Amino acid sequence: MLSKDLPDIESILALNPRVKTHADVISTATKKKEKKHWKRNPERGCDSCVKLENNFDDIKHTTLSERGALREAMRCLKCVDAPCQKSCPTNMDIKSFITSISNKNYYGAARAILSDNPLGLTCGMVCPTSELCVGGCNLYASEEGPINIGGLQQFATEVFSKMGIPQIRNPELPPANEMPDSYNVPIALIGCGPASISCASFLARLGYSDLTIFEKQKFTGGLSMSEIPQFRLPGEVVQFEIGLMKDLGVKVVCEKALGVDGVTLQSLHKDGFKAVFIGIDFLPMVATASKPGMCSCRGSLPELRGVVIVLGAGDTAFDCATSALRCGAKKVFVCFRKGFTNIRAVPEEMELAKEEQCEFLPFLSPRQVLLKGGRVSGLEFCRTEQGEDGEWLEDEDQTVRLKANYIISAFGSMLGDPQVSEAMAPVKMNRWGTPEISTDTMQTSQPWVFAGGDIAGMANTTVESVNDGKQASWHMHRYIQSLHGQAVDAVPKLPLFYSAIDGVDISVEVCGIRFPNPFGLASAPPTTSTAMIRRAFEQGWGFALTKTFGLDKDLVTNVSPRIVRGTTSGHIFGPGQGSFLNIELISEKTAAYWCQSVAELKRDFPDNVVISSIMCSFNKSDWTEIAKMAEDSGADALELNLSCPHGMGERGMGLACGQLTPNVTNIVVIATAAYEGGADGVTATNTVSGMMGLKADGSPAVSAISRALPGFPVLATGGIDSAETGLQFLHTGASLLQVCSAIQNQDFTLIEDYCVGLKALLYLKSLEGLGEWDGQSPPTQKHQKGKPIPRLGELVGKSLPSFGPYLQEKTNAIAAYKRETRNDVVTETIDPTVNVPKKPVPAVKDVIARALRYIGAYQELDNKEQVLALIDEDMCINCGKCYMTCNDSGYQAITFDPETHLPFVTDSCTGCTLCLSVCPIIDCITMVTRTTTYQPKRGVPISPMC
Amino acid sequence: MLSKDLPDIESILALNPRVKTHADVISTATKKKEKKHWKRNPERGCDSCVKLENNFDDIKHTTLSERGALREAMRCLKCVDAPCQKSCPTNMDIKSFITSISNKNYYGAARAILSDNPLGLTCGMVCPTSELCVGGCNLYASEEGPINIGGLQQFATEVFSKMGIPQIRNPELPPANEMPDSYNVPIALIGCGPASISCASFLARLGYSDLTIFEKQKFTGGLSMSEIPQFRLPGEVVQFEIGLMKDLGVKVVCEKALGVDGVTLQSLHKDGFKAVFIGIDFLPMVATASKPGMCSCRGSLPELRGVVIVLGAGDTAFDCATSALRCGAKKVFVCFRKGFTNIRAVPEEMELAKEEQCEFLPFLSPRQVLLKGGRVSGLEFCRTEQGEDGEWLEDEDQTVRLKANYIISAFGSMLGDPQVSEAMAPVKMNRWGTPEISTDTMQTSQPWVFAGGDIAGMANTTVESVNDGKQASWHMHRYIQSLHGQAVDAVPKLPLFYSAIDGVDISVEVCGIRFPNPFGLASAPPTTSTAMIRRAFEQGWGFALTKTFGLDKDLVTNVSPRIVRGTTSGHIFGPGQGSFLNIELISEKTAAYWCQSVAELKRDFPDNVVISSIMCSFNKSDWTEIAKMAEDSGADALELNLSCPHGMGERGMGLACGQLTPNVTNIVVIATAAYEGGADGVTATNTVSGMMGLKADGSPAVSAISRALPGFPVLATGGIDSAETGLQFLHTGASLLQVCSAIQNQDFTLIEDYCVGLKALLYLKSLEGLGEWDGQSPPTQKHQKGKPIPRLGELVGKSLPSFGPYLQEKTNAIAAYKRETRNDVVTETIDPTVNVPKKPVPAVKDVIARALRYIGAYQELDNKEQVLALIDEDMCINCGKCYMTCNDSGYQAITFDPETHLPFVTDSCTGCTLCLSVCPIIDCITMVTRTTTYQPKRGVPISPMC
Repeated sequence: MLSKDLPDIESILALNPRVKTHADVISTATKKKEKKHWKRNPERGCDSCVKLENNFDDIKHTTLSERGALREAMRCLKCVDAPCQKSCPTNMDIKSFITSISNKNYYGAARAILSDNPLGLTCGMVCPTSELCVGGCNLYASEEGPINIGGLQQFATEVFSKMGIPQIRNPELPPANEMPDSYNVPIALIGCGPASISCASFLARLGYSDLTIFEKQKFTGGLSMSEIPQFRLPGEVVQFEIGLMKDLGVKVVCEKALGVDGVTLQSLHKDGFKAVFIGIDFLPMVATASKPGMCSCRGSLPELRGVVIVLGAGDTAFDCATSALRCGAKKVFVCFRKGFTNIRAVPEEMELAKEEQCEFLPFLSPRQVLLKGGRVSGLEFCRTEQGEDGEWLEDEDQTVRLKANYIISAFGSMLGDPQVSEAMAPVKMNRWGTPEISTDTMQTSQPWVFAGGDIAGMANTTVESVNDGKQASWHMHRYIQSLHGQAVDAVPKLPLFYSAIDGVDISVEVCGIRFPNPFGLASAPPTTSTAMIRRAFEQGWGFALTKTFGLDKDLVTNVSPRIVRGTTSGHIFGPGQGSFLNIELISEKTAAYWCQSVAELKRDFPDNVVISSIMCSFNKSDWTEIAKMAEDSGADALELNLSCPHGMGERGMGLACGQLTPNVTNIVVIATAAYEGGADGVTATNTVSGMMGLKADGSPAVSAISRALPGFPVLATGGIDSAETGLQFLHTGASLLQVCSAIQNQDFTLIEDYCVGLKALLYLKSLEGLGEWDGQSPPTQKHQKGKPIPRLGELVGKSLPSFGPYLQEKTNAIAAYKRETRNDVVTETIDPTVNVPKKPVPAVKDVIARALRYIGAYQELDNKEQVLALIDEDMCINCGKCYMTCNDSGYQAITFDPETHLPFVTDSCTGCTLCLSVCPIIDCITMVTRTTTYQPKRGVPISPMC
Repeated sequence: MLSKDLPDIESILALNPRVKTHADVISTATKKKEKKHWKRNPERGCDSCVKLENNFDDIKHTTLSERGALREAMRCLKCVDAPCQKSCPTNMDIKSFITSISNKNYYGAARAILSDNPLGLTCGMVCPTSELCVGGCNLYASEEGPINIGGLQQFATEVFSKMGIPQIRNPELPPANEMPDSYNVPIALIGCGPASISCASFLARLGYSDLTIFEKQKFTGGLSMSEIPQFRLPGEVVQFEIGLMKDLGVKVVCEKALGVDGVTLQSLHKDGFKAVFIGIDFLPMVATASKPGMCSCRGSLPELRGVVIVLGAGDTAFDCATSALRCGAKKVFVCFRKGFTNIRAVPEEMELAKEEQCEFLPFLSPRQVLLKGGRVSGLEFCRTEQGEDGEWLEDEDQTVRLKANYIISAFGSMLGDPQVSEAMAPVKMNRWGTPEISTDTMQTSQPWVFAGGDIAGMANTTVESVNDGKQASWHMHRYIQSLHGQAVDAVPKLPLFYSAIDGVDISVEVCGIRFPNPFGLASAPPTTSTAMIRRAFEQGWGFALTKTFGLDKDLVTNVSPRIVRGTTSGHIFGPGQGSFLNIELISEKTAAYWCQSVAELKRDFPDNVVISSIMCSFNKSDWTEIAKMAEDSGADALELNLSCPHGMGERGMGLACGQLTPNVTNIVVIATAAYEGGADGVTATNTVSGMMGLKADGSPAVSAISRALPGFPVLATGGIDSAETGLQFLHTGASLLQVCSAIQNQDFTLIEDYCVGLKALLYLKSLEGLGEWDGQSPPTQKHQKGKPIPRLGELVGKSLPSFGPYLQEKTNAIAAYKRETRNDVVTETIDPTVNVPKKPVPAVKDVIARALRYIGAYQELDNKEQVLALIDEDMCINCGKCYMTCNDSGYQAITFDPETHLPFVTDSCTGCTLCLSVCPIIDCITMVTRTTTYQPKRGVPISPMC
């Protein structure tokens, strides 16, 4: 039979789904065994502690791959007056940076982050977000829960760090040598931790040129280097941020500190420093040994064998506990004075220790260390209890003894060193021995001395230290300027983050008109009124088309409802809709309104372009009348609306006059008619057949009009919702880009993301060394869950899925490898490379129509150049979607292992690419050139063969 | 100025986003205060315990609204050979039921669930899923994490329960009075808990008619009623499932049990019972008091004032802890013998107790209850410790005393009652005092006695008890049949769940051909070969179009790659793509192959319809030749492919011969030509302008061809991906429904969902009392996070958002209300209503073109009938998307409160509906009729007014 699968195919099909005709009966006993084979989450109650020895790989749940980041960013609602921002100590514009991630504008995202927080990457990794930004997320009110803001912040800044682009001075400032003297005074910052790095960065952005940070240790980074272990915050991250600060000329002097070698505030003053910021960290140091690359001072990993007790319930305690496991501890007990309801660390910090099988003992207060043979053998506690009045009592009668080989104290600590306190004289100190500070200005009793971070008493987290430094910078600025008789605005305005990208020129000349940027408002709801156009121009939009207007006799009144969500988003409701269906008519406002107010707009925004969109019925005198009116109002150009597909047609207008809509057999004919009729350009919809999925480098796509009429300006509309898609439209021949739906989904501030994004895309084209990048996307690393895949191929010689026995095998192999390499010499980390442009940055006009050469007719394709699917077993998540689609929509060319659930592509693959199209993991499947000849299966032999 | 917003609008715009021009400076101290105002997650460390008194509202994190369920179902990958199913004790086809939820076929989902698990709703609520189905979810390998399977299961079965449709007997069985005698033997089941309900349900489905359950208590449901508190499993749920069992004739006798009133296995045997199933639960009873409606036997809520100690670390312990808070306990300590790593309950169960501020004390073994004045004053424990060898030691020297007013023991329990054991004679017992059982058959030493659940020793969870009962049912069936000399297949096949819906006829006659159902395969990749069509027919597809074939001289070879994902899914990768872009040509196989194998198909599947799709160039003799070949092969009809938009056109084929593609100015002209040329019907794409978002009741949409050519069969294709969308196409005039992309996204088994879904949609049309439903969707309840909104309007007279001080106010108001109503009399729950059809169930032909009467030209709309947006403040999640879109894409007609973040629609609303289109919460915004006259803003006055 021809119509029945051959036995080899039937065996491939063994696991393909079938409609269930009856309920199965499998014993509970059998199922208990079976589920173990497929289990992906950790087995409970198993003692996995020792397996972490010397394993400093990232353990953060928040880390995201590009795929994960895009998905999560899409989920964010980008709320108005967003509570996440209100709950961020640095007041970061979180919804804007997430918008930029959504739009694949990772530079734009990083710029927004670093503008408010120079330690944006560090904070993305270590912030206790559930108590900060995330705590306010409106999505708490939905089943899907709040956004992973920390992970998104980490992702965007990490991608930016890989671009290798330095920070530059605020371009609005005069050149360095023309700055007033008041900006050249020497300023000292004590302690190279988050508060000082932040303070110095902002002072440098304001234009101060003589900034010196003094650091007691041999290495920079403060707490971030000494306190937070490598698996939560790698050393490179800290050095990246210090690097950005140094880009602005900040100097760092190590091994110099208050109270050391006679350095005091007085001595600094004597040395000429006009202002000092004290940003000393004084928490215990537990993590230094885990970080490679600390100016050759990496200690060897402490060896902890046996049982470890950690005292305390703050984040440091949990860091100590998880670090202890990595130093070889067999079992870790975290003991604390109060109960679980009083734990200081946020749940996500405790969670990691819990997952790694640490034990917790509440209501215990340490009494004495027990010794045996001069060595620690345990710790004795007494029980604590909370009385009815809420007071905590310690009951010395109830003692608890816990055996242990090591005890780590991770209770909060104080500024203990009296030399440091003395060196701060004559600054007035408070009863906790730290400087008395104004929480409004961060100023101490000495007007020239400011402080922030731990020492200032308000900050409990890195991000609050950063904010202290930021806040102090402004008041130091005011103080220093006041010394020079310069008044500073009372409303603080600190400069944003800048790089060479921000200087890229994205203006473009079309039809003899200069546009400040190629993004404008389409003739659509966002231009309902000229007051709205005014607001759009204020936000940075380059041009606007008015909503179409006509003569008074043709005035319309809309029906309602008239704009509904499309179905392309499936069951996803809310912003980010892929399409809206509308039956909105032209403007309800009069021509007189439009002409008078367009004149006002042109007067107030001479550099922005206003195009008046007009419509009449098929009547020359009407068209002449309205066109003259519009021209006289000062509009830069006119758009003749010959395409409105609903409502107007019945009146003999809109589409009845032309057919510039997607619903035509051949849009080129219509565009050619416009060209031949003397039009200077056309506005064209993108929904001509098959326009989707261009890459930012301009690979194949279709743009029929531009091919037929080279050089004829096309104002594209319909699908532009980011700089990335905008560049795709430019590549296929558009000159200008009109936006509507994206604004309906959000608001006018999108323009900032579009402009910065386009600048970044153009700038990156000038760099070498990013050859593998696609626009702003770095090449996909081999990863699972956003974390690099361990080198299993090398360790066990094959790929293993991440469940049941295979997961166990994998875990064991990695543990063994980590243990073995415990004493391996660590190579110093090298300074991040700086990417300097090797080619000129292209202008907008240089990229227009750049992809047209790749776009051709079907017959130009070569059916001798066949491809095959290749599946990366390490990235595979074993869902079998590739297998199913190949079975029921293709060629039964993928096998699927019943035990490992790993798919394998056979030689029957015809390269159709459906498997890649349904694979949930980006770049897990790639199409590679077929090396053997492709032989179509003709079903029955034909002769002659063709 | 006309082009500037007036002051009242400017004040509305105060919170609208602006591009950030500088970094803000806000002190850390200020931010610490500000974030409290916006906090949505619980304040840590605050003592909220007493607030739960008498509050038995649902606390499950997994509960989903329809919106949440659709979103979650869309996320599921529907993996092949899915590990979730493998990890489910009842082997439920999880990916199929999630597919049905995705497709809004909630009956289909419930049917799949109940087919394998008659307690599907209970298990959706109480299963420890992280150790079962969810533990195997492949999405553990992604950042977004595994699917909320329990929540989805609960959602679908709950919607079905609201439909009020009874279970019916397996329709494949002979009528009850024609069943063989062997099916009429009396069978007894002991204990009306999960195991017995499951066992009885399956026995009844197999056709057994004399089934009696004996229950010791006054009420039915077993553990589900007595053990699991109302806030995790409401009593109605248990009664719904018992109701479904009773639908099949199972009898329940309460207050009768083994060992009571002389009832023993022997006495049952004497009474004529031929087989017995023992499904007794014997865990402690803690929750009964919380459940209303238990046959008037609801105890009053126990009053617990002060401190409560709960002993144990299983799920019962955590249920006791959270229940104690609801009985008024001020503080609850959960104490257990081992450590956190040894906790028996799954994390999600402990999590709830943790969130409600229970305290945990590990490593404590209870020693003696401390008394003061004859009342409990505390408990004394000794410390436990795990030795190096893993053995647990109890150190009597270290004692710990905890003050308490109540002590609840929630350690696991045993079958304690000797009378019950004795009543089981002569069944052989094991050393734990329970019957010795074969885990393969659930049979005891007495061949006629079976057991399952707690008493059988293998099940630890409700779902495992259900599976025990299911498994026993098959072996009881075999045993009973063997008594009558009937052999039963060794491979177990239990009947599925059936209702009247499954009997609906969905066949349809088109062009004189009878189609078993209206769903078929389009001429596309799923019909690459006839072996694939064969497999599709086996799964239930009604018809198939072959992939287009032509004469040997026109044979093609495809290029690769040729099918890529579209961009309509944005950055969501993986299955469920809204579109694929393809340049696949017609079949690579020969006409000889197709003709020969179509003949085979028709021979083997005479009731299925095969339509051969053919193509030639513009040449009459070629067309005649291929058409004759195809006709002779036995194809039921021919489809002439005149529309292929790529590749073939250049050869003078496909689109070059016709234009039946969406890319035409007017598709009606082309369809009319086909009609006039003598075609019996057309296959037409749906992407004519503006087809989206039909409701299942057939409200407005467009179907140009059907309007122009009434009665002319249209075989619709392009967008059919569910019964729901299929019905929309039928409503707009399609007669048959062709599918391709949906199969590419998944597999052939979709047909089951489509057929069951269409049957359900047709059946529901025959019911009254579901008037508010839209298809299978019940009306949206007022909810947040899927849980009903407390009656705040009545309590505090206004709506309050769920953050910061408002959340606090809300919580307090609810707590006060619950406390006050503590002793209110509870109304008995009433039996669920059964919906009986009041009208005939429509046939497919009755619904074709039913919506055409609503579809008209724009001019038929009335611009005097205006609507306004109305926002439900209780459902609102305060994101402000409505406000933003109205500002920048509309009319500045929504205000937004800077403190409460509640939006309010002003009279300026023009009813455009954009706000509703971007709102993330379904039915939070509705459009209501405007009662005042709509006056368009003309900008400047015109005269005369129009």
